[in-house]
Amino acid sequence: MAIANQAPVPDVMHKLNNHSEFAIIRRFFATSKLSFPREGIELGIGDDAALIDVPANKLLAMSMDVLISGIHFPADAAPSLIANRALAVNLSDLAAMGAEPYCFTLGLVLPESNGKWLADFSGGLEHLAKQYNCPLVGGDMSAGPMSISIQVQGLVDRNRAARRSGANVGDKIYVSGTLGDGAIALLALGLDSHLGSGFCLSQRDPSAVCRKFFKDAYFKPQPQIALASVAGKLFSSAIDISDGLQGDLQHILDASEVAGSIRLDAIPYSKSAMCCVGSENRLLAALFGGDDYELCFTVAEKDCIELESIARELGVRVTCIGDINAGEGMAYLGANGSPIELTAQAFQHFSATT
Amino acid sequence: MAIANQAPVPDVMHKLNNHSEFAIIRRFFATSKLSFPREGIELGIGDDAALIDVPANKLLAMSMDVLISGIHFPADAAPSLIANRALAVNLSDLAAMGAEPYCFTLGLVLPESNGKWLADFSGGLEHLAKQYNCPLVGGDMSAGPMSISIQVQGLVDRNRAARRSGANVGDKIYVSGTLGDGAIALLALGLDSHLGSGFCLSQRDPSAVCRKFFKDAYFKPQPQIALASVAGKLFSSAIDISDGLQGDLQHILDASEVAGSIRLDAIPYSKSAMCCVGSENRLLAALFGGDDYELCFTVAEKDCIELESIARELGVRVTCIGDINAGEGMAYLGANGSPIELTAQAFQHFSATT
Repeated sequence: MAIANQAPVPDVMHKLNNHSEFAIIRRFFATSKLSFPREGIELGIGDDAALIDVPANKLLAMSMDVLISGIHFPADAAPSLIANRALAVNLSDLAAMGAEPYCFTLGLVLPESNGKWLADFSGGLEHLAKQYNCPLVGGDMSAGPMSISIQVQGLVDRNRAARRSGANVGDKIYVSGTLGDGAIALLALGLDSHLGSGFCLSQRDPSAVCRKFFKDAYFKPQPQIALASVAGKLFSSAIDISDGLQGDLQHILDASEVAGSIRLDAIPYSKSAMCCVGSENRLLAALFGGDDYELCFTVAEKDCIELESIARELGVRVTCIGDINAGEGMAYLGANGSPIELTAQAFQHFSATT
Repeated sequence: MAIANQAPVPDVMHKLNNHSEFAIIRRFFATSKLSFPREGIELGIGDDAALIDVPANKLLAMSMDVLISGIHFPADAAPSLIANRALAVNLSDLAAMGAEPYCFTLGLVLPESNGKWLADFSGGLEHLAKQYNCPLVGGDMSAGPMSISIQVQGLVDRNRAARRSGANVGDKIYVSGTLGDGAIALLALGLDSHLGSGFCLSQRDPSAVCRKFFKDAYFKPQPQIALASVAGKLFSSAIDISDGLQGDLQHILDASEVAGSIRLDAIPYSKSAMCCVGSENRLLAALFGGDDYELCFTVAEKDCIELESIARELGVRVTCIGDINAGEGMAYLGANGSPIELTAQAFQHFSATT
């Protein structure tokens, strides 16, 4: 773990005022809009534990993400956007398993109790919770340096979970959406990137349209739940691209004990990325940037037509960017199909900064 | 939420070094001692989500607690003790539902990566995880001000969960173990208590035996899993005493829409509490102190003999401290059974400090 910008830790013990905590939970979280009933949720907020049912033909998928103020989101961002991002990145993990959202729990740590902040934050959660029929069922609150822990629970058909280990030689490698936007968004929002000082916008002032696009890309990533729930049965493996295509696809290759080749010119970019960033930095953002919350998945060649047909019907962009091969490691291919050694300055730079 | 000792929040964005994070997880958490196989755990650490099975005759109980350094534990405490406390307080919530531990997830936020700290912390988790056959199946790591989010999952027979809402008029009120030790431990460990300046030890230097007892009470609370799993079927309602008997029992009374009466002289205290604290402060600690992680539960009168027999066999102390009555609110009774108005200075003091 690389450490920087570390906040001093308070060293005096402090007992929470539970009365206020319970009042906050009742007012902002145990509400009919956020902690709504759902079939299978036997008991939600208000007891020592939530109680949920899992249908006999399903497995329960669980994923936890912790977001720290000043690291995973700017401390002064709008609370509804922070909430949206926190829940969306968790839902993206469910999509990567081919699981349907079921319910979530929230561990909220705040330096102070602010009614407006809490109302906006709760409203941001409500939006996604309703959209995916995924109510809040429990959690914890504490005073402290701001952080948000969310655990999402999802349901997935037995033997249908899209594990990282299922890629087979001959499968096609796909990605959903466009890549690199999460990393470029940091630049557009004036935030620090880990990609180094050479990673910069090609124009000083992006247009209002581009700024809006990148703000949404960062704070409102769209978890690919619909694609995963309809087409997940065709994924031989899947992962969500939270750390950059290179690292995340490598997890699939390692777990599946296969090699992969990527056609660099097939990587899909958004219009805003094309507009605001030069080609080398776009590639850097796509391969090493992270925060895209798109899916990288593999599909048997025989299933590709069906996959692309489903994606078209859903209006979700999917792009075949390469192949699974025998062996190990990842090869990058140029436009003519010949291997490209990624020893360019950008990648040396990346190696030096991580 | 009462706020104090707030740590400044870093305001510069920082991207984690994922390579180090993965290495830490592999070395200290995705180990055979902590992330061990268990029937029903289909997929543990290492994918986008864990996958677990829930038997058709069971419900899944889930509880999350977030512990903040400097608030819920001293920052400089031994990492194995911090780990023990963090997992134990979560397991206590499962006991309060009558649920059997199944697996847990961990969100660990640390200001720096320290191999010795991580090894000791992981070792502290291993101990309880093994004891209760409750492996680590996933989670998240981040740099930031130290905090520990744990979500425990448990299994409970359908219709056997001990909800807060099940107490009936005529039931007997029981507690496990002894009360007040968690709050008195803060004094014995030299930490701040929220019970005010009048809450103090009756002797300046507790004996080594008492200090050891209170250190264990604070860092190694014993979740009443065995009692709950064997005798939970006899609980009409249950809660764990994390906030003090008064507030926690009141949750049962509210949820069950009943009244309760407590015989003050029946409240069980440890020898160390008897030795180190005066009678009024002992009562204050038991009723308002919290951090005891014992169970408060109700049992139908016809089941009391069986309950006490089971407890004897398990070697777990249980004490009948009162009755569930019709109406609402809580009454405190003196030795002769007459009501005691708790308007003494101690309780006024408590009211003023919360």
